[in-house]
Amino acid sequence: MSMHQRRLDLKNGCVDLSHGAGGRAMAQLIAGLFHEAFGNEWLARGNDQSAFDVAAGRMVMTTDGYVVSPLFFPGGNIGSLAVHGTVNDIAMAGARPLYLSASFIIEEGFAFADLKRIADAMGEAARAAGIAIITGDTKVVERGKADGVFISTAGVGVLPEGLDLSADKARPGDRVLLSGSLGDHGVAIMSKRQNLTFDTEIVSDSASLHDLVADMVAAGGQGIRLMRDPTRGGLAATMNEIAQQSNLGFRLLEEAIPVKPAVAAACELLGLDPLHVANEGKLVAVVAPEVADAVLAAMTRHPLGRDAADIGEAVADDHRFVQMATSFGGGRIVDWLSGEQLPRIC
Amino acid sequence: MSMHQRRLDLKNGCVDLSHGAGGRAMAQLIAGLFHEAFGNEWLARGNDQSAFDVAAGRMVMTTDGYVVSPLFFPGGNIGSLAVHGTVNDIAMAGARPLYLSASFIIEEGFAFADLKRIADAMGEAARAAGIAIITGDTKVVERGKADGVFISTAGVGVLPEGLDLSADKARPGDRVLLSGSLGDHGVAIMSKRQNLTFDTEIVSDSASLHDLVADMVAAGGQGIRLMRDPTRGGLAATMNEIAQQSNLGFRLLEEAIPVKPAVAAACELLGLDPLHVANEGKLVAVVAPEVADAVLAAMTRHPLGRDAADIGEAVADDHRFVQMATSFGGGRIVDWLSGEQLPRIC
Repeated sequence: MSMHQRRLDLKNGCVDLSHGAGGRAMAQLIAGLFHEAFGNEWLARGNDQSAFDVAAGRMVMTTDGYVVSPLFFPGGNIGSLAVHGTVNDIAMAGARPLYLSASFIIEEGFAFADLKRIADAMGEAARAAGIAIITGDTKVVERGKADGVFISTAGVGVLPEGLDLSADKARPGDRVLLSGSLGDHGVAIMSKRQNLTFDTEIVSDSASLHDLVADMVAAGGQGIRLMRDPTRGGLAATMNEIAQQSNLGFRLLEEAIPVKPAVAAACELLGLDPLHVANEGKLVAVVAPEVADAVLAAMTRHPLGRDAADIGEAVADDHRFVQMATSFGGGRIVDWLSGEQLPRIC
Repeated sequence: MSMHQRRLDLKNGCVDLSHGAGGRAMAQLIAGLFHEAFGNEWLARGNDQSAFDVAAGRMVMTTDGYVVSPLFFPGGNIGSLAVHGTVNDIAMAGARPLYLSASFIIEEGFAFADLKRIADAMGEAARAAGIAIITGDTKVVERGKADGVFISTAGVGVLPEGLDLSADKARPGDRVLLSGSLGDHGVAIMSKRQNLTFDTEIVSDSASLHDLVADMVAAGGQGIRLMRDPTRGGLAATMNEIAQQSNLGFRLLEEAIPVKPAVAAACELLGLDPLHVANEGKLVAVVAPEVADAVLAAMTRHPLGRDAADIGEAVADDHRFVQMATSFGGGRIVDWLSGEQLPRIC
């Protein structure tokens, strides 16, 4: 189709309002940039929706918006993050991700070259996760009415039979398993934002966790009560949410929680608490005590769970407090932050 | 849960960065405003994804971003639009919509009262369409980094067995059916934006079309080749897209295309061509000639297809031109617009 083969100037060009207008320029942008990056049979059909076959069973659906600033950071960019984050929200139900949609809101003047890097990262992250971005939308707003690009992805996945994880399912006595070190993503973003450099580069942990989850489900089955990825608000917010929804408390062990030395040092410098910092490639699982060892062993055998640890337990507590036994033998309450520590971290 | 029962000041309050931070303020906003408006059992479980049962078969998925300006307009607001538009993208495949997700990107300082009007309109539109908004996400960006609120909705639906509509399926001789008058949405937005008033208020046609589509599918079955909703770029862009994808041309009859007198007058005044103006409650169907009468009759029996008309036919044409026989007996080529006529119309 001649119209679709006219080339965009991907090196020097930039997005203008016509690229969101539903006409020829938009068709060129979609064909020349997004289809190239996401390349799959669904998009090639050029419809406003895509169809796929499903078996009878239980599915999950999720969505997340991504407004991270800066758009490019050590370990990824907004595009890879928009795939990993939504894959992970599907995976936290114990489900296998199948398909994603992507909605782009782009500021007039945004460079095609940057948009291509972002779309390429999305395509790559999707292929790595074994899924496809099968439908999308592009809107352009005037200069000054957005900030570069915002992406909202939605995803669907399929649940293994009999699995029904939910944040209200924790029971006193359950163990809390964390898949690895805290704070990498948030500190990578903040370092980049503040132009800080460290001896060791701090890289976002942004990654798709569904494969790790499949191993955990194989090991723990219905003994897994729930899983959550501690993104915005960090582990502190996640544990408080679960405490609220399951109507119990948690006792965590500070010394059991892995934090990389470079991340700990950066947190000191930036005045951050790793417990409140966002992660994009970590999960916390609350599991029945009788399966905890098997699930933890499965986690540590997986590359994304190498540093997994048992960090504490659920306890009966009408106050729903998340308590932490500190390394010095004391204790403290881990609360939600009431304000905003790290705006636009994801 | 005490935390979730603390009330937001929905009258005088506004969104700040803490409402996107993953902590207590965000939980309050979600429980106090979005759950109230969307109220359903899925959201009440408070997970980052929602699960639902499906029968074996074929599903569709779609997404759209909404950046319309102004946010409130005659006939709706960005919230109702975000439901109707995504329902319609599902319906254009001939599918029955099931579930939506909603991702909000909100500018710091946006009034809770306005956000509530928007969320209420979404909930109402979803209930009217017989679907539920089962999962969502909220991000907040700094003042000046967005424009009020942007919404991206995604949706899934289920296809009747044997139906496979696609923009590459038109054949020479097929009829083109339009469900009603052109230009209402775009002109309603532009009038509001320019503070124009007319004797007759021009109201957006924003509406969910899946019910009309079900009637059409019942009447025309697999004789329906494809359906499209002529949103951004209007009927002109839609027909050119189909011509490209089906590798043929169209001959349309200008006098057969319904345009309301008030809309025609406003278009004159604003220098717009109704063929290029966005619609949000209209569809165009390309159907086999043998089912055209039955499908058109089904359309005119439905409240949203009362003014439906047969507006022309598909023809063999290697140039893939969309031609129009004008009321004065002449002819012209209906091209895509190369630039942007109406930014942020949806």
